[in-house]
Amino acid sequence: MSKRAADALAAAEVIVGYDTYLGLIADFLPGKKIIGTGMTQEIDRCQAAVEEAMAGRRVAVVSSGDPGIYGMAGLVLELVFKYPPALQPVVDIVPGISAIGAAAALLGAPVMHDFAVISLSDLLTPWETIVKRVEMAAAGDFVIALYNPKSTRRISHIEQVREIVLRHRPATTPVGIVHHASRKDESVVLSDLENFTREHIDMFSLVIIGNSRTYTAAGRMITPRGYSL
Amino acid sequence: MSKRAADALAAAEVIVGYDTYLGLIADFLPGKKIIGTGMTQEIDRCQAAVEEAMAGRRVAVVSSGDPGIYGMAGLVLELVFKYPPALQPVVDIVPGISAIGAAAALLGAPVMHDFAVISLSDLLTPWETIVKRVEMAAAGDFVIALYNPKSTRRISHIEQVREIVLRHRPATTPVGIVHHASRKDESVVLSDLENFTREHIDMFSLVIIGNSRTYTAAGRMITPRGYSL
Repeated sequence: MSKRAADALAAAEVIVGYDTYLGLIADFLPGKKIIGTGMTQEIDRCQAAVEEAMAGRRVAVVSSGDPGIYGMAGLVLELVFKYPPALQPVVDIVPGISAIGAAAALLGAPVMHDFAVISLSDLLTPWETIVKRVEMAAAGDFVIALYNPKSTRRISHIEQVREIVLRHRPATTPVGIVHHASRKDESVVLSDLENFTREHIDMFSLVIIGNSRTYTAAGRMITPRGYSL
Repeated sequence: MSKRAADALAAAEVIVGYDTYLGLIADFLPGKKIIGTGMTQEIDRCQAAVEEAMAGRRVAVVSSGDPGIYGMAGLVLELVFKYPPALQPVVDIVPGISAIGAAAALLGAPVMHDFAVISLSDLLTPWETIVKRVEMAAAGDFVIALYNPKSTRRISHIEQVREIVLRHRPATTPVGIVHHASRKDESVVLSDLENFTREHIDMFSLVIIGNSRTYTAAGRMITPRGYSL
């Protein structure tokens, strides 16, 4: 967490967030009004935050990773902009350490070159759109980071991704899987494009597929920038 | 800066980095050995860091943004892995706030959906590879973030990018340009795909091109995640 984020939490009168994330910032909670709800109620949660702010209170909405990368920043702004300009509270977005950055640091240096980030969740995005993006990212030889790679309900999507990328890259292309990056139960697995879907992957995993030049050494995954060394 | 990064700097005996970045962490420098060189000498600088670590000293290599995203993490690991395993120093990578995250926070919430990050610098990457990636990212309707968008020597590349993306997205697609994100002279410009290359863009700029659904409201740039609100 950055000093700026800590300062924002300390200054808040109301803290709003998914219960699990509130548990990670327990030190900041005493003496404040807390609004925590379950994972699928993010609209209600952000709406409550906006209403608290419109009532004149200083509110912090907590998002895991970077709130500006698939995080709560967009939902808060969208809800704010439904009100007339004169009523809209000021929204300050505090950037954080992204899940891809946290995962990359644990794996080595897989994101030293151009990359594409794709969420495999089809709750809000048609699966055809996601497939098209995977195809484009594979064809462009991007390092590919997959958010929300697999859920208990959705297990075949990651297999389709594997098949698409295998059409463009060798089966030996390194693939890193990180669970719970930067949490106390973080774990890292290094695999390859042929085999990675046999590893445990769930909604708390982040998967990074190397580009055609990515290699592994001493248990680290490295995508060379292209220096002559 | 995260507490973990501050702790790593405080614990270091040697701090290595590009002079401009060392100037931003002046508070951490007193009493330490400092190795700073100019921008194009990153190999020499990281090699010196590796040698200091092999001599048994605790070394911090400073990178702007996130060291794992186009940063110094990869170069340090590549140099370390040239030595026999028994001689290799331990490398710990501390993730940071990425340039794209810092820029996105200033613009609003442009990176709420799948995105591609492309460096337009052709010093280490063939221009044809870069063009292919821009084409794939445009065709996949990714939000596109451009690192190193323009230098004094290289002014036509960004025009080519504009032309490629215009084949896939409306001329009114929002484009954000951020200079020196999170520095004291940071600035933000909101433009569109038709006009953005008329704005000031240099090597310290980060350009974010919206996807087909990105819009602007109250001076912010928002890519909707897809919620029904």
